[in-house]
Amino acid sequence: MTITIKHIAEICGVSSSAVSIVLSGKPGHVSKEKRALIKETARKLHYTPNQAAVSLSTKRSNLIGILAPDLNNTHMTTLFITLEKELQNYGYTVACNVLSPELNEGQRLVQRMAGLRVDGLILLQPLLIGENENFKNLCQTLNDTNIPVCCSDTFELSNPGPDVRFDWEKAGYLAVKELIDNGHRVIGCISGQPDYAVSIARLEGYKRALKEAGIAYNPKLIFYGDYSRQSALPALAYLMGQKVTAIFSFNDEMAFAVYQSARQYRISIPADVSIIGCDDVPFSDVLEVPLSTISVPNIEMGRVMATELIAQINNGVQGERKQLLYEPALILRASIAKRTI
Amino acid sequence: MTITIKHIAEICGVSSSAVSIVLSGKPGHVSKEKRALIKETARKLHYTPNQAAVSLSTKRSNLIGILAPDLNNTHMTTLFITLEKELQNYGYTVACNVLSPELNEGQRLVQRMAGLRVDGLILLQPLLIGENENFKNLCQTLNDTNIPVCCSDTFELSNPGPDVRFDWEKAGYLAVKELIDNGHRVIGCISGQPDYAVSIARLEGYKRALKEAGIAYNPKLIFYGDYSRQSALPALAYLMGQKVTAIFSFNDEMAFAVYQSARQYRISIPADVSIIGCDDVPFSDVLEVPLSTISVPNIEMGRVMATELIAQINNGVQGERKQLLYEPALILRASIAKRTI
Repeated sequence: MTITIKHIAEICGVSSSAVSIVLSGKPGHVSKEKRALIKETARKLHYTPNQAAVSLSTKRSNLIGILAPDLNNTHMTTLFITLEKELQNYGYTVACNVLSPELNEGQRLVQRMAGLRVDGLILLQPLLIGENENFKNLCQTLNDTNIPVCCSDTFELSNPGPDVRFDWEKAGYLAVKELIDNGHRVIGCISGQPDYAVSIARLEGYKRALKEAGIAYNPKLIFYGDYSRQSALPALAYLMGQKVTAIFSFNDEMAFAVYQSARQYRISIPADVSIIGCDDVPFSDVLEVPLSTISVPNIEMGRVMATELIAQINNGVQGERKQLLYEPALILRASIAKRTI
Repeated sequence: MTITIKHIAEICGVSSSAVSIVLSGKPGHVSKEKRALIKETARKLHYTPNQAAVSLSTKRSNLIGILAPDLNNTHMTTLFITLEKELQNYGYTVACNVLSPELNEGQRLVQRMAGLRVDGLILLQPLLIGENENFKNLCQTLNDTNIPVCCSDTFELSNPGPDVRFDWEKAGYLAVKELIDNGHRVIGCISGQPDYAVSIARLEGYKRALKEAGIAYNPKLIFYGDYSRQSALPALAYLMGQKVTAIFSFNDEMAFAVYQSARQYRISIPADVSIIGCDDVPFSDVLEVPLSTISVPNIEMGRVMATELIAQINNGVQGERKQLLYEPALILRASIAKRTI
């Protein structure tokens, strides 16, 4: 049974409004004795105010919505866990919905979050480039709601909330430059979805590093997955067929697929093929040949997203839309060898 | 700006109650033309009903709370993702809070969920045995709220909701029997927290397998971690000092720590030490020596938990508390060798 103000009033032999005055801090006179009795009864019965009623009067739900594309990915999981922890510390509960890759439900889920009157919304869905109707509708709906928003990798919003970004272009550049510095000239890529802005940025970084080294760009050397391990299982066989000596995988998850296939085909990492990932998920260090990678400061980014969103909720937006750009760092382990052939 | 019934009323030049009648389906007469105008305006402005108001009148929040101990663990992440997906299909949004291992905040978080008037609550926190005050308070508060609850590994509740369990005792038994069948006699364990019911059950399974084989139980062969990889990093060095030839790790995450230390100490798996995990997380298959393990049907369990909870919300509880027990299965890969010394 959910304990309500009415129950407490009956038990204490007072009116509901007396209980309401004492427990909700509404103005009105109640004697000291009755006050103590009401408080003690509420405590004993574990009375909790109905958040829906509180929300209607305070216009605060104490909910923060998170829309994420896929939590089955260490990068997203780390962001989500960090956000939940930070927001919990601020007294918020996270309301979470996972978006499908096709974003079929995107618009409806934004509306559902609006219906829940979340105090703020965090978007972890990467920006889609091009003519994706679902994505456009989602952004449009979001702009219409006027909920304070904080996003990562990132929406085109008229909403002036902070935008916490990671420099994916530089990540791609650093990774591929490292391979080139080790003598590699035929370098394959394992990309995610080509219409994600985060994929395009990494590819740009790859191209910049090639150009600097005077190596021509060859689109045949790009294998397209969807950032899941499963999608990258055919990548190694394909890229070996293209005679690559090194691979830049757009995330560690897909690099793990290369490890899996390498074992199957008896290809040795790094003797036969060098590989570098991106994300620095904790598992990279468990492998027999630990994966060299690019670190992404997920925990710091998660903390900043939470803090910026709360500031926006409490103080509104002042001035220009804030852009925070995080820098990649190279983590060298054992999966890159000097080219010998 | 959040669009309310009042705004729509102003724009359409009708009363708020007319809008309310049309959009909330309340009884009352509004002309066909005005009905169409109100609906079209609401659609154009992306009007969403205030869930707090809907919740007060329908007594439904369309929120399901999930309290989980730690999402930084593939077993929990998989359960969480499955639950979110299933519950989203049923039209619910997940409100999520992560509990600290000490459960300091447990009672307060249950109260917060109660305050949000969640329609149901899912508990992924494992049962603690013994005199943990925080845990007792959490259970007591939960029993008091009368929110429909579905739990896994699992609470002692007077609440009659379904209890979805995995047979951890049998998991321990199967794992250790496999090691014994390969000739091992000195078998170490890497356990989680000793006061978790799920740890005790696995240890019972270990003991049963030893007893069947006529091997005496030696408590020195048990290393205690907390189910995180970090906690198990010293395990291999300790257990090798105890002259074990095989290890049963209570989860795959801690088995990965053994791989990490084995590389560091140049100990070969399985030539120098055999190892079996528990959970069958996807990474197990990426390792150079794929990890033999026990599979836990997380996805099926997640689906059933969601379905059972929704049934309970819609129909109440009929008859006895439902217990659903899931069975472990042995997944043999390459990390167990016949004992040769």
